Amino acid sequence: MSSVLVVGSTALDSIKTPYQENPRLLGGSASHAAVAAGFFSPVNLVGVVGDDFPSEYVELYKRHGINIDGLEHKSGQTFHWSGEYEVNMNNRETLSTILGVIEGWQPKVPDSYKKTPYVLLANMAPDVQHAVLDQMENPELVVADTMDLWMNTTKDELLRLIKRVDALVVNDSEAQLLTGYDNVVVATKKIHDLGPKYVIVKKGEHGAILSGPNELFIAPAYPLEKLVDPTGAGDSFVGGMMGYLASREGGHEKNLRKGIVYGTIVASFCCEGFGLHRTGEVTGEMIESRTQELKKMSEW
Amino acid sequence: MSSVLVVGSTALDSIKTPYQENPRLLGGSASHAAVAAGFFSPVNLVGVVGDDFPSEYVELYKRHGINIDGLEHKSGQTFHWSGEYEVNMNNRETLSTILGVIEGWQPKVPDSYKKTPYVLLANMAPDVQHAVLDQMENPELVVADTMDLWMNTTKDELLRLIKRVDALVVNDSEAQLLTGYDNVVVATKKIHDLGPKYVIVKKGEHGAILSGPNELFIAPAYPLEKLVDPTGAGDSFVGGMMGYLASREGGHEKNLRKGIVYGTIVASFCCEGFGLHRTGEVTGEMIESRTQELKKMSEW
Repeated sequence: MSSVLVVGSTALDSIKTPYQENPRLLGGSASHAAVAAGFFSPVNLVGVVGDDFPSEYVELYKRHGINIDGLEHKSGQTFHWSGEYEVNMNNRETLSTILGVIEGWQPKVPDSYKKTPYVLLANMAPDVQHAVLDQMENPELVVADTMDLWMNTTKDELLRLIKRVDALVVNDSEAQLLTGYDNVVVATKKIHDLGPKYVIVKKGEHGAILSGPNELFIAPAYPLEKLVDPTGAGDSFVGGMMGYLASREGGHEKNLRKGIVYGTIVASFCCEGFGLHRTGEVTGEMIESRTQELKKMSEW
Repeated sequence: MSSVLVVGSTALDSIKTPYQENPRLLGGSASHAAVAAGFFSPVNLVGVVGDDFPSEYVELYKRHGINIDGLEHKSGQTFHWSGEYEVNMNNRETLSTILGVIEGWQPKVPDSYKKTPYVLLANMAPDVQHAVLDQMENPELVVADTMDLWMNTTKDELLRLIKRVDALVVNDSEAQLLTGYDNVVVATKKIHDLGPKYVIVKKGEHGAILSGPNELFIAPAYPLEKLVDPTGAGDSFVGGMMGYLASREGGHEKNLRKGIVYGTIVASFCCEGFGLHRTGEVTGEMIESRTQELKKMSEW
């Protein structure tokens, strides 16, 4: 059993859907990814929060066995995202963003974290991802998640980061934005040309694609009847994957396909509740049982 | 080895893509479906063509072992569809439609066809699908494909047909149009309520979903780097599936999952060329090899 370092945003999310409105939920890429990874292996969290960050959210991290030595408390507001989903839950609009303490944040990785073998650079500004990676000592596997925002605003920093990681995670529209190719197979090849050995494309309800040296893997997603709030699903996916990889013997190459499937399973739970409401009540047994269900659904 | 009856449109297609233009190709739902089914089992074709239908297209049917005793020749123009695809190949626009001899056509099923056990009502007007089904004697499995046009123009006839079939095939947007539910799992349940034991939802590059009594099956699609012309892919899918089912021992329930996968494989070849150009040169070995490739890509 190895452990996972997760760096990313630790945030408050205010989320509206056509059916409900929930203010100031625990959110952020690192929160979702760390909780997801925590189902499988120990997690070292790096993040920053402000004075308004509720202590119950700190307790939630702890309850999931997440090491918070690297969670910095700064004077000011916690990063706060407000967004609204359309009826089909596929499109969302950002209503407001308060950067708060995340603005200009220089992440400091605690000494006790520096040899963590599995490094997940969850979605956030590429310069912060660089700063964390700079402080790590010989990681075994470095995976970066990102989003369209960084492709549009800090593309050079992002491209420099992509060269440094073993795996890049994007969704299908981001793969197109990054490469200019709308065919997902072609786009993954173009992303390989930018550096990473592995490219993982998230396709939401359609699953995910892994492209590695000489292989493509097509992963199914667990079919959901009801999507309550998809916020954090991508972070849960990559967190679940990394946690699974760190928990297994035999190296990441051997376990990557299963890791991706476990990632889609944790993501499916995430979508069933607002924020971390549903993920927070999930057990290892529930994950295993849903994974076996998906296995039966995809056998032929 | 059993055989498949295929009824549907036998047409001329003039297709424009951003890269190429091809007039008067062999097209129509029955042409694509019959050729696809013909890779696996004997096919009895029911259709109608006009004076302008090229004899080389009749030869193509024959070359694929398709029985054309039920291909009626009428005085007039062959059904002719002209359409244009956008750059991403997902959206297409109908430029013109000439119904020709298909208008008011009363299909006559030859006596020698009437006991065909596998009946594929490929996409066409529901009243024609009814008329063919009325003439069949105790079919083992009846599958109907359809499209948004019939949901918008002859919904009552379509709903009456849906009650009569074992399986209905639609794509994801049609499932939503038919039921009013955009969640695909919910939509399949609503379609079951309309009658069919099996509901098959085509998702293009994302594969297909089969919903049956107490099971869901999530089928992957073969990842293509280049889409030349997707016209007929859905027809190839359902044709390939029916051909496979008819070719196997043990009944359709046992073989349905594999049938769907073989359907997606034949559909993938269809997309690689205009009209039936690529499908027409495919061999059983090519289908088998691509299926094994897909198997390796989807194992975990």
